[in-house]
Amino acid sequence: MDWERIDRHAKQWTEEAGNRIRSSFDKTLNVQTKSNPNDLVTNMDKEIEQFFITQIKKTYPDHQILGEEGYGDEIKEQKGIVWMLDPIDGTMNFIHQQRNFAISLGVYEDGIGKIGYVYDVVHNELYHAIKGKGAFLNGKRLPMLKEAKMEEAIIALNATWVVENKRIDHNLMIPLVRDARGTRSYGTAALELIYVATGRVDAYISLRLAPWDYAGGALIVEELGGVVTNLRGGKLDFLSKDSVFAAKPGLHETILKKYLKDGKW
Amino acid sequence: MDWERIDRHAKQWTEEAGNRIRSSFDKTLNVQTKSNPNDLVTNMDKEIEQFFITQIKKTYPDHQILGEEGYGDEIKEQKGIVWMLDPIDGTMNFIHQQRNFAISLGVYEDGIGKIGYVYDVVHNELYHAIKGKGAFLNGKRLPMLKEAKMEEAIIALNATWVVENKRIDHNLMIPLVRDARGTRSYGTAALELIYVATGRVDAYISLRLAPWDYAGGALIVEELGGVVTNLRGGKLDFLSKDSVFAAKPGLHETILKKYLKDGKW
Repeated sequence: MDWERIDRHAKQWTEEAGNRIRSSFDKTLNVQTKSNPNDLVTNMDKEIEQFFITQIKKTYPDHQILGEEGYGDEIKEQKGIVWMLDPIDGTMNFIHQQRNFAISLGVYEDGIGKIGYVYDVVHNELYHAIKGKGAFLNGKRLPMLKEAKMEEAIIALNATWVVENKRIDHNLMIPLVRDARGTRSYGTAALELIYVATGRVDAYISLRLAPWDYAGGALIVEELGGVVTNLRGGKLDFLSKDSVFAAKPGLHETILKKYLKDGKW
Repeated sequence: MDWERIDRHAKQWTEEAGNRIRSSFDKTLNVQTKSNPNDLVTNMDKEIEQFFITQIKKTYPDHQILGEEGYGDEIKEQKGIVWMLDPIDGTMNFIHQQRNFAISLGVYEDGIGKIGYVYDVVHNELYHAIKGKGAFLNGKRLPMLKEAKMEEAIIALNATWVVENKRIDHNLMIPLVRDARGTRSYGTAALELIYVATGRVDAYISLRLAPWDYAGGALIVEELGGVVTNLRGGKLDFLSKDSVFAAKPGLHETILKKYLKDGKW
């Protein structure tokens, strides 16, 4: 497998997609509402996903694509090469803020992450990881993550998970909020993973993400020594929706043991 | 009172302070810890506050200054002209993220906001309001805020206020989190107020802010038709720490009545 060639294409298409998004800001966004009112979708999401699919299918006809907008393939098992794409992660922010969103792309082989891209289009920050070769911001190598203590930790965590909800006993989350130095919430999994990767926050927790939300960012965090699992400490399978818990080394273990009771819930 | 002259100076000093902050990013930040570990302070906070104080005292010797770092005056009553300054609002973000912080400045006369500046240094976005004359971003007039519905609202609200705390019965906050379209938290009051002013979020709630945190942003929100009170719906006095609740017109009334029980708690 020519991974250098695949990486070159992944980068090129991600950058081109970013340029399309940037140039769309002047146009009026045609916003539709999906089944869930939280789940806004714009014509831009669709256009970007179609763009990737066209390029990938033309260049790599045997690769599969798992995309948020559903124009890709139905993936049932971890076989071969799968491109996992969220054309605009943080659509609500994209619409309301024209910031705090990103393109997220992960290329996986037999379930193992090989290439990850997260493009913060507005800041023109292209984050990038190649399995075993480290992670980069605009081509410049990012430093490895250092261990962090709980009492100094900033945790990205939405208030939704701290009130009663159907995904987790919120009483597990409350002490976490209390003991951390602070919490934040940006409404974009891809960038929140990047925030972990760059040390802007120390941990990130979400109770429900799809593979395309985390595939790109997770690899970038892991290449810098961070740990990414679900909230029970289990491996993400990149096939189904799951909880996601990313943190600096050391801190991941502390939170998992002390607050998340090693997944015994 | 020559408010145009005061405004010219406020703008000039804010921009110069922003330039100093930008050029500091390459230097190592010398971080001290104040009494509360959440309350980080850098030499940059101090330097910026001293810079403003020197300029203000030289140019307007009869004006008073209320600054976060405590180098200003002790203000006991709402008399004369007071400059309320947070040299770096969002110090924790400044240190960890080098983004999501702002310079916040409000100039008040006898307790009435006359001039407000919030400078998002990293994005080079200078927000500015003059009482009765509207609000501007980099000199371009900002549109008035439109009414928003609760089910479409994004609320900036830290998870801290949704767990048991000494400021408010968190059971009042829980339905708010449930019914809103989403919540966010950025860890910078000044920019969260700007997010309300620009419609990037629909409301902002904090249970504990100092006058320098909100003096600049509150005027900007109000000049665009937004409503800023404390969480009981009362007027902010710009002398003491208080809760702050800023929202789009209509939405402010809805939240105050339905969720915050008109302050009857």
